[in-house]
Amino acid sequence: MPQFKVPSDILTLLQQEKNFVIATHIDPDGDTLGSALALGSGLAAMGKKIILYNSEPIPEIYSFMPGIENFTFTPPAPENPAPALIVLDCNEAERAGVEHISFKHSTIIDHHETHTDFGDLKWSEPHAAATGLLVFHILRELGAEITKSMATNLYTAIAVDTGTFRYSNTDSAALRISAELVDAGAEISVVAENLYQAWTDGRFKLLVMALDTLEVTGDIVITHVTQEMFATTGTTPADTDNFSNFPRMMKSTKISAFFRETEDGCWKASLRSKGAVNVAKVAELFKGGGHKNAAGFKIKADLKTVKEELLKAIHKIQDSGFTEE
Amino acid sequence: MPQFKVPSDILTLLQQEKNFVIATHIDPDGDTLGSALALGSGLAAMGKKIILYNSEPIPEIYSFMPGIENFTFTPPAPENPAPALIVLDCNEAERAGVEHISFKHSTIIDHHETHTDFGDLKWSEPHAAATGLLVFHILRELGAEITKSMATNLYTAIAVDTGTFRYSNTDSAALRISAELVDAGAEISVVAENLYQAWTDGRFKLLVMALDTLEVTGDIVITHVTQEMFATTGTTPADTDNFSNFPRMMKSTKISAFFRETEDGCWKASLRSKGAVNVAKVAELFKGGGHKNAAGFKIKADLKTVKEELLKAIHKIQDSGFTEE
Repeated sequence: MPQFKVPSDILTLLQQEKNFVIATHIDPDGDTLGSALALGSGLAAMGKKIILYNSEPIPEIYSFMPGIENFTFTPPAPENPAPALIVLDCNEAERAGVEHISFKHSTIIDHHETHTDFGDLKWSEPHAAATGLLVFHILRELGAEITKSMATNLYTAIAVDTGTFRYSNTDSAALRISAELVDAGAEISVVAENLYQAWTDGRFKLLVMALDTLEVTGDIVITHVTQEMFATTGTTPADTDNFSNFPRMMKSTKISAFFRETEDGCWKASLRSKGAVNVAKVAELFKGGGHKNAAGFKIKADLKTVKEELLKAIHKIQDSGFTEE
Repeated sequence: MPQFKVPSDILTLLQQEKNFVIATHIDPDGDTLGSALALGSGLAAMGKKIILYNSEPIPEIYSFMPGIENFTFTPPAPENPAPALIVLDCNEAERAGVEHISFKHSTIIDHHETHTDFGDLKWSEPHAAATGLLVFHILRELGAEITKSMATNLYTAIAVDTGTFRYSNTDSAALRISAELVDAGAEISVVAENLYQAWTDGRFKLLVMALDTLEVTGDIVITHVTQEMFATTGTTPADTDNFSNFPRMMKSTKISAFFRETEDGCWKASLRSKGAVNVAKVAELFKGGGHKNAAGFKIKADLKTVKEELLKAIHKIQDSGFTEE
């Protein structure tokens, strides 16, 4: 079990500063939002002034998170003295959308690999399953009481980033801290219901339509949705989030490719793989990118050609030994 | 967090007896199997002779569980002196399939409500999320080392009975003990892959076919599979396990009913509900039964009639206030 030690300079800063802007990342997820909400509540209880900032609207799925209505979406007006900036679950100024915020100094609390110089103070733990775990440690070091709302927000952070303890990043630290959060009032079934059982009827119908397009070629599965399907079901591209994961339920599936038609007549591909197959290498052939098991690209061609090109590219990568097997 | 105390008479029995038959229940699941495998390993390490017994073949999905090949499926030959019988995750002799086993005395370790007199010694904790949690406490009290295999088996037991920590029975005890099991070597992602990503192609195609039959009536969703669909996809009724849960992904769904056609031309209904709606009351109207949020029944009629009767029954139960809302 990894032991996380909160850097003392960050604790000192959190204790001494009075005004904070807590920034989350674009395309916000449960980890960045839950971490911000819990840290914000803890600091507010210490008498600090807190602004929770996201540069984009928050997806409907997270509307159940306690306090989510307190986020602001436009850069806060400059103040004198300027507030301290805390950036959560991200280490890039652009991704945090903070270019137009004036701040005294910046602190990064994150669990991604660091790629940038951004941040006057930094605490990054790439082995932490979620930034929420780091915030939990911070709150404990600060002596903050973990309220029911804070517990629910931190639990959501961990649940989202671990697939509720199904992904390989899940470790005993994530489970043990989640147990403490449940004891502090986090309601597991409420969070699970909101994360996994809150689809619109249209989104579910779109999924069924997508699965109906299933084409299996060896260990590669391709599904797609068209603009017409979006129109029929009253859905948007955001509703296809996670669609590429469903065909991975099949033991035989090594690569799942999901295509969605864009308004400008292109196709956006979302690739998911199991185990050793590196789909980032496949995506790079189409000038896309991503991680080993999750990548994507965009292509302009008719669907039949797109599928053929993808299969060719996958075979090319497999033949070149880029599967790390 | 519930604290479970192992009854001292059960501990004494486990320490003193030398020969055991450990019986699991029919329609075996990860909890009964994982509990038996872990307890069996622990007792075997203490020099005891162990027979693991199930009266039915074990579903393919559990073939990854360490030691699963050690189960026997025919009643062990009578011995003198007769072995001690331990029944796990069940409290009925018939459900444990032990009518034809000769034993000295019987011990029940279970987390279901007790309905029968079966069992000379009993430890039942209806508030335990899984029988595996009780076995964990027993092994700890016995001073048994939890090996990697035992940890994987107990983790699987907990994962299966809590939907990997998504069901409302999940509590901090389940999370905390799972953390200890991960520290002891249980591999979360291997278990998750085997439980959730090991479907046959045929089963996945059957699911897509079932979802294609989706009919929504208010907050009630009905899906079905026919004998013809089984034939087309090369699947069996066991492959429909969990199908009734998928439509619950929709926020609007309060009741999901899944019908499967039987070989003798009947329909078996599997009902799932969210929250306060009590589908056991619905099933009782068709001489079926179950729990508040999961119940079932069998009916002989054509599909159209079956659906109409079900909708009528649900409305009757809702009107009678049996929804506990």
